[in-house]
Amino acid sequence: MSTHPLEEILHPQSIAVVGASNNPSASGYGFTEFLLEHGFKGKIYPVNPKYSEILGMKAYASLKDIPTSVDYVISCIPAREVLGMLEDCAQKRVKAVHLFTARFSETGHRETAELEQEILKQARKWGIRLIGPNCRGLYYPRQGISFSYDFPKESGSVGLISQTGGGAAIFVQLASLRGIRFSKVISYGNALDFNESDFLDYFSQDPETRIIVMYVEGARDGKRFFSSLCQAASAKPVIILKGGRGKSGARTVASHTASLAGSMRIWETLVTQAGAISAESIEEMVDLAVSFYFLPPITGLRVGVAGGGGGPSVLAADECEEAGLDVIPLPPEIREELKSMGAPIWDWIGNPADVSMLGGFEFTGSDMLRMMARNQNFDFLIANIITLPLSRKEVRILRLRGEAKGYIKLKKESSKPLLAVVADMSVGIDDYNDSSWKAICEARTKLVAANIPVYPTIGRAARAASKLIGYYRRSE
Amino acid sequence: MSTHPLEEILHPQSIAVVGASNNPSASGYGFTEFLLEHGFKGKIYPVNPKYSEILGMKAYASLKDIPTSVDYVISCIPAREVLGMLEDCAQKRVKAVHLFTARFSETGHRETAELEQEILKQARKWGIRLIGPNCRGLYYPRQGISFSYDFPKESGSVGLISQTGGGAAIFVQLASLRGIRFSKVISYGNALDFNESDFLDYFSQDPETRIIVMYVEGARDGKRFFSSLCQAASAKPVIILKGGRGKSGARTVASHTASLAGSMRIWETLVTQAGAISAESIEEMVDLAVSFYFLPPITGLRVGVAGGGGGPSVLAADECEEAGLDVIPLPPEIREELKSMGAPIWDWIGNPADVSMLGGFEFTGSDMLRMMARNQNFDFLIANIITLPLSRKEVRILRLRGEAKGYIKLKKESSKPLLAVVADMSVGIDDYNDSSWKAICEARTKLVAANIPVYPTIGRAARAASKLIGYYRRSE
Repeated sequence: MSTHPLEEILHPQSIAVVGASNNPSASGYGFTEFLLEHGFKGKIYPVNPKYSEILGMKAYASLKDIPTSVDYVISCIPAREVLGMLEDCAQKRVKAVHLFTARFSETGHRETAELEQEILKQARKWGIRLIGPNCRGLYYPRQGISFSYDFPKESGSVGLISQTGGGAAIFVQLASLRGIRFSKVISYGNALDFNESDFLDYFSQDPETRIIVMYVEGARDGKRFFSSLCQAASAKPVIILKGGRGKSGARTVASHTASLAGSMRIWETLVTQAGAISAESIEEMVDLAVSFYFLPPITGLRVGVAGGGGGPSVLAADECEEAGLDVIPLPPEIREELKSMGAPIWDWIGNPADVSMLGGFEFTGSDMLRMMARNQNFDFLIANIITLPLSRKEVRILRLRGEAKGYIKLKKESSKPLLAVVADMSVGIDDYNDSSWKAICEARTKLVAANIPVYPTIGRAARAASKLIGYYRRSE
Repeated sequence: MSTHPLEEILHPQSIAVVGASNNPSASGYGFTEFLLEHGFKGKIYPVNPKYSEILGMKAYASLKDIPTSVDYVISCIPAREVLGMLEDCAQKRVKAVHLFTARFSETGHRETAELEQEILKQARKWGIRLIGPNCRGLYYPRQGISFSYDFPKESGSVGLISQTGGGAAIFVQLASLRGIRFSKVISYGNALDFNESDFLDYFSQDPETRIIVMYVEGARDGKRFFSSLCQAASAKPVIILKGGRGKSGARTVASHTASLAGSMRIWETLVTQAGAISAESIEEMVDLAVSFYFLPPITGLRVGVAGGGGGPSVLAADECEEAGLDVIPLPPEIREELKSMGAPIWDWIGNPADVSMLGGFEFTGSDMLRMMARNQNFDFLIANIITLPLSRKEVRILRLRGEAKGYIKLKKESSKPLLAVVADMSVGIDDYNDSSWKAICEARTKLVAANIPVYPTIGRAARAASKLIGYYRRSE
């Protein structure tokens, strides 16, 4: 069992939302409703002297009026009221306070920075631990705690540590559409008490977390962070995105979480030395998380690609190669097998395999990948799924369904790692109701349900695979 | 009026589909139906001895049986039947044949390569021009000609020249979702007669085409292509994507269109010297086309960004800067204006402007961009539109609508170039019916209808803008 102080803090029996509200656009309304919506099993205490009832629950004028003990407080009150609230927390022996409350050091004003330090001092005095301030706090589906609407209620094995709340929400949104589920997500803002290194230490030994994803703007203590990162990365994959890489980003970091962004060169060296995996954008962070979530360790670069048509096959070859993958020629034994099957193009089709050139001969992308799966020359496979309007809608919907089914069958039959590409599209309202678009959504859901990682472009699939392979090669 | 031979060829009064069919999965069915579906105004003649009627029209056993003249033939018959058909074409004084028919030189077999040359020889003898073989041919919405289902029926000003048909279809699909409409699209495959240089020459002087987009695997005659590219790029923006950049891509090119991919270094130099704009993937080709389609010339790099929240603002700064843009600090006069408006954060908010930090003060991303639009320090603006589930569904749908409306109003009021970011998402079937997803589609449609280019990520918006600015700076 974990002995890290966060272990107890993240398992509260009761949560009070100070500054809870009946006004749906107030954050104190949201944070109360998230607990109800996600089915938090402990006690929920809305606190606000202006209300007698909030969201159907009795409201308390003050923390002190709550009859039982309170483990965890979510603070949605203004900055100037926090010190007073901490006194009440001390009386109630509250273990931890999540300060959603903002406008502290990140404003750049001396008074608010001083107030922040005073809050830390008082919290230390009373043994209260702090998450934040200026952050969205905790999403812990297994415990029924969330900081947003419509996050998945099921749990998974990805742990996200994020200095940004909005970015964390984007990550959860994009990643969960692609099948990822989370152990815990912590948005920690100004890192006044618990900081990035604390969370990293905790996640690194958390049995619920198999993959750590991290967004950091700056480390409070570089040396400690490097040590924590080394330790975490030796235990499990750590995917890390740095915010504030350039001069304007660093300036924005100061007003976002009052962090010092630091030198990017030093950062890159540090991340590489620690054995962590560096991401360059939220989208790449999602691609990498999806890869580590669904794929087994891959240590070879030899990729087999099928589907996509002629030009897309050429571009697939280019983008895979540019990502550092080895797009090997089609092995002679596969050509021989195709010949013996009577394929007219046995000496013609290559890798990437453009099966569209087979015309009348009944042979699909998954037939091709199945042959590649059996062949020891391939380390892993990419299915490039076509979503084009080249045939009648009914025909292409059937074909798309057939394609998805074929790849899912292959995934069940073979242990060869398999990635799939299904294009994201900037769908407008006229296309929204189109049955072929609906069929694309259906195919995505089925592939994901079969534990196949799905990427929006071949380039993104290739680059993510290449980084995953690099990671497993280093750890061999 | 154009005197290029393609001008007459692309305006046929009558089209015969040789190898037309009543079997919906046959290409000869598709090519006939495309003409009906897109409302081709000339005569349509399905040719196939096996049918008396095709898609409700009289079918002819042979071209020779057609009572009137035939200007343009779409060939969907097998390769071995093409020479015989060309004789019939000669009798009917057909001006041009589009050979959808494939399996020629791209097979790598000597016999089919010889057959291809024999076809060229016969066509030359009889004065018949050829598009293809091994290509999807023409999409010309103004003339009611298409090579795919569900392509837009309205015309626009983007001309696409593509060696790949599948890639061309992907491009049309992705680009039209983002508001682009086409003058003409030509998929030209093996380029036996008309080649990339011919099409480039034609598009460069075609008054219907304002922007040229091109996918090339290899140029038949490098010197001529370079000369055509220089001329075209001096007349209008030419966005160009090269297929077959690496060794596996070049191998795939050979079996795709029998082209020689050539050295990538020479290619890059050639494109830069010609003043064309190089794309690295179909997605970037779409981003660039969208940029040139909707944006006026921009020659300054100073960008103002609003929306997106805290972390995303930091990442927006990083990605803009990494793309070569200048994310200037918020000018003092804007801070003063904010102060006079009573904004509590006048000395705090920056560029990118995270308006989410304004809390109670009623101030939106479009309010911020409006101030930036009036300020001479900004060359252009990016609206980073939030689609996050941080508030209740009804609230966030209203907010999203309000945001889109605000940016559309700004676009109408100000001539400062404006780009918008709305995330693409890998939507599955469970999310498909979600009203907030529908609201995102609605917002996209409204932004596009207001002539605002929409990008799926801030990084893609920034990189496309940077290349557009580079182009206009060079042509100053």
